[in-house]
Amino acid sequence: MATNPDPTTNLESTISTGLSITDNDLNDLIKIQGDLVRKLKADKAPSEQITEAVDKLKNLKKELTDRQAANGEESTAGGEKLLKTPRGTRDYHPDQMKIREQVFRIIIDCFKQHGAETIDTPVIELTSLLTEKYGEDSKLIYELKDQGGAEQLALRYDLTVPFARYIAQNRIATMKRYHIGKVYRRDNPKMNRGRYREFYQCDFDIAGDFDLMVPDSECIKIVVEILDKLDLGQYKIFVNHRKLLDAIFAVCGVPDSHFRPISSSVDKLDKTPWSVVRNEMIHEKGLSPEIADKIWSYVQMHGNADLVDKLRTDAQLMALKSASEALNGLEVLFRYLTLYGVMDKIIFDLKLARGLDYYTGVIFEAVLTEYQYDPQLGDDQVAVGSVAGGGRYDELVHKIDPRQRRVPCIGASIGVERIFAIKEHQMAQSKMQTKTIETEVYVASAQKNLIEERMKLCSYLWTNGFKAEMALKRNPKMLDQLQYCEKNQIELCVIIGSAELQAGIVKIRDVQTREEFEIPRGQLVEQLRAYLTKVRQRPQESSSKTNNN
Amino acid sequence: MATNPDPTTNLESTISTGLSITDNDLNDLIKIQGDLVRKLKADKAPSEQITEAVDKLKNLKKELTDRQAANGEESTAGGEKLLKTPRGTRDYHPDQMKIREQVFRIIIDCFKQHGAETIDTPVIELTSLLTEKYGEDSKLIYELKDQGGAEQLALRYDLTVPFARYIAQNRIATMKRYHIGKVYRRDNPKMNRGRYREFYQCDFDIAGDFDLMVPDSECIKIVVEILDKLDLGQYKIFVNHRKLLDAIFAVCGVPDSHFRPISSSVDKLDKTPWSVVRNEMIHEKGLSPEIADKIWSYVQMHGNADLVDKLRTDAQLMALKSASEALNGLEVLFRYLTLYGVMDKIIFDLKLARGLDYYTGVIFEAVLTEYQYDPQLGDDQVAVGSVAGGGRYDELVHKIDPRQRRVPCIGASIGVERIFAIKEHQMAQSKMQTKTIETEVYVASAQKNLIEERMKLCSYLWTNGFKAEMALKRNPKMLDQLQYCEKNQIELCVIIGSAELQAGIVKIRDVQTREEFEIPRGQLVEQLRAYLTKVRQRPQESSSKTNNN
Repeated sequence: MATNPDPTTNLESTISTGLSITDNDLNDLIKIQGDLVRKLKADKAPSEQITEAVDKLKNLKKELTDRQAANGEESTAGGEKLLKTPRGTRDYHPDQMKIREQVFRIIIDCFKQHGAETIDTPVIELTSLLTEKYGEDSKLIYELKDQGGAEQLALRYDLTVPFARYIAQNRIATMKRYHIGKVYRRDNPKMNRGRYREFYQCDFDIAGDFDLMVPDSECIKIVVEILDKLDLGQYKIFVNHRKLLDAIFAVCGVPDSHFRPISSSVDKLDKTPWSVVRNEMIHEKGLSPEIADKIWSYVQMHGNADLVDKLRTDAQLMALKSASEALNGLEVLFRYLTLYGVMDKIIFDLKLARGLDYYTGVIFEAVLTEYQYDPQLGDDQVAVGSVAGGGRYDELVHKIDPRQRRVPCIGASIGVERIFAIKEHQMAQSKMQTKTIETEVYVASAQKNLIEERMKLCSYLWTNGFKAEMALKRNPKMLDQLQYCEKNQIELCVIIGSAELQAGIVKIRDVQTREEFEIPRGQLVEQLRAYLTKVRQRPQESSSKTNNN
Repeated sequence: MATNPDPTTNLESTISTGLSITDNDLNDLIKIQGDLVRKLKADKAPSEQITEAVDKLKNLKKELTDRQAANGEESTAGGEKLLKTPRGTRDYHPDQMKIREQVFRIIIDCFKQHGAETIDTPVIELTSLLTEKYGEDSKLIYELKDQGGAEQLALRYDLTVPFARYIAQNRIATMKRYHIGKVYRRDNPKMNRGRYREFYQCDFDIAGDFDLMVPDSECIKIVVEILDKLDLGQYKIFVNHRKLLDAIFAVCGVPDSHFRPISSSVDKLDKTPWSVVRNEMIHEKGLSPEIADKIWSYVQMHGNADLVDKLRTDAQLMALKSASEALNGLEVLFRYLTLYGVMDKIIFDLKLARGLDYYTGVIFEAVLTEYQYDPQLGDDQVAVGSVAGGGRYDELVHKIDPRQRRVPCIGASIGVERIFAIKEHQMAQSKMQTKTIETEVYVASAQKNLIEERMKLCSYLWTNGFKAEMALKRNPKMLDQLQYCEKNQIELCVIIGSAELQAGIVKIRDVQTREEFEIPRGQLVEQLRAYLTKVRQRPQESSSKTNNN
């Protein structure tokens, strides 16, 4: 036990001091304690030690269940009903929607620039389609209650399996498509790091029997273009090949049946120290320490295209046809990525494994340098891990298709929720106020009983294509109307009064400068257009300055 | 029985002749037969007649269950696995996505023109939020399986209840927002009429304590603007007031507790003859025939603003404060709608009831004249019923809010799936081929071993903002490349060869006219931009003509 200082103590003392512990913290504690129990059992520790650890685990689980039950009843201690979205989900507020709109716009433009078309598939799929496609993660699939229909239904876990179904069902031979939609995972959410139970995926895939690494290099090129345009700072794209990884496992002596579970363990090495992963390989997945250590000697390796040559000197590895094929493929890929001018972003990294079962070739993952996860810092950092990833999956359509057609595929997925989290963080730090409505002309009046005149004028402006609004009160206060304009950064305000109406004129107010001027009613449309152009050419000042005027 | 010719016979004979009967047909048969059984029982018909009808109902239900079970097992008679989306859902293909994009663009632009901001809420909500909000329709809510979490979850049934939760949870006093998202109903789908189990809703709502009918008239004005811009032909907007309808029920002698169920019956009058609805009111909902017939004498009435004056002469009705208030409101509404220039579209119709429980004031529904449902024609028509609807719901936030704040709301919902169905129908009839990709320049080569040159050129074009593509083969055939351009209506094709490369020139091909010309490599960007402008100014010819060239 001396070499295993109890990692739960800190959080426990936090609990005892009454500081706020989140459900996520509790889940982490449970995980750590569970690992300890497994280790003690595997090490055949004294039974009282095991019992103590098990009791502690039970208490932690009970604490979590109690909390969740309390939430489930939707009442606070005071008995007041609590309104909330389901665990791991969130509402998007208007300012967040603005960010989402901008991020999607950049990404979709990139996909379209590469000739992609788009499809949509249902959020619900037959459960039978989803089972046995995700390996260890299948337990995270949300299923629907049996309410008397004949179909067993589940919420989609990603957009890739539905895409493979689409390709198979419609007998498609080639397709370049993007798809943006929500997917669902009963995962342990870490919402401040952009990890939700309901989240957007944003996928680009190329299906079809094309030539070696041509679609693969385009997928990686697109990821680079998107990350550059999103302006998220420095990043690296880690690349590996599933066939190479499997060859390494074979060379190390891992039995075939253990390739995918061991691959899952290797996948954790970006966030978990080798000692923990080694432990898992040996005690949970049944490898011998020698095999585990031999794997470690390989998966530590990373570099650039030169690593291909270095691995080619490994006779044991090169004896496997799949290894030399994978290395030939990677050589071509790196050549194409050089032509595409993006090779400086690439790290060939043997510990990149990717979680999902269905990959069969090149795999990749983009990580932002500035927002890399630091295990030391815990949950408070805005660290998002990978912001894009993908890989080749040549067997998925074949596995799904009743006609057993083989349609090789490669795809890239942009981790938009994590990108939203970063953009929201940047926005909060800049203290810029987001303009969430697009109104450009506000119709106001200082006098009573002019609602019908305001309505007629609004209607006239709508007909002429202006984005226009007015107060929805019969007799609104002038101050309220002007404050609304300033708060929402509306460019112009048209002010009407009975004197102006009689004289056939209207007053226009420049909301930012607060200047006012009168124009003939008959010139309203042209004058508003001209003033809007003028106002928009003015150098943008931050809204906080405007508010201090 | 002589006055009740068996309506199921036709469909039954279709079954016996082996023509294809859909599940929807079967569901209709079951409904009709169920009504007959209920009627026979209510009429105390001879028991052998009842037994015969019940047996027939059982057989129909068994037929449906067998079919659904067969689908559930996902195998055809031949044992081949069948791929499909869940019942009542569909994939959107690229050409359908194009229509969807265009329809959403028009609608969103309208919402933004009126100063609306947008939010998004999760597709899953706590079940407790959704219960008791939808009256008789609550049985149609999809629930999630209990997989060990503490929360009971369900798929959202509309966007209105989540909006009310959002307003309550975030303590919002006023908001003008739109929300586009998928909702879920375990309904009997009629997919050719745009009725799905998973479908988009497209809502605009105004929350806040504003003045009488000001937000209400803006909601109806927006519906008119959207339907005009969508160019769906003639339409009418039916308007009524829930308080007026309730006052009518009170005057007719309906007990308070029966208002909502009877309202549900009245709501069916657009598709169901009075005799059937009357039957339901008497035998299922327990009204006396006299009360039912008195209701009928009212709900037949429809007209324009004059109907307000006519109803004001009804002393029995005007004795109820709620009736006179409702009529005063409608008078103001019709005045505002006149100012907005849309009163010619409005029909004040006393039989409009709207299905949902939560409405408390003005209700409305837009119906396309050309695509009105004709019960005589059955399921093969492209009849879509209402394409927009909405109403005032002043109590929903109050009911949900633990702090019991009262935030009056009114909303309009655009029935986009039905609009997609019409647009797809129009597109199919026009035989126009939809351009589903936006590629404007294709990089081709007639010679072998130029893949790297094509990649470099594509990369250069992407960098310069062009939407560009190339074949993903090392040595594609020239014919395949040109056919791809023509099929996808790509404007220009850049053709490279080793001779051109050495000479520092490239060949540009105008895909539609098939003209080719050479330009210096250094002028590529400017020349492509100029030619694209020129090609786009050319009068659009139908793609079928292009294909016949």
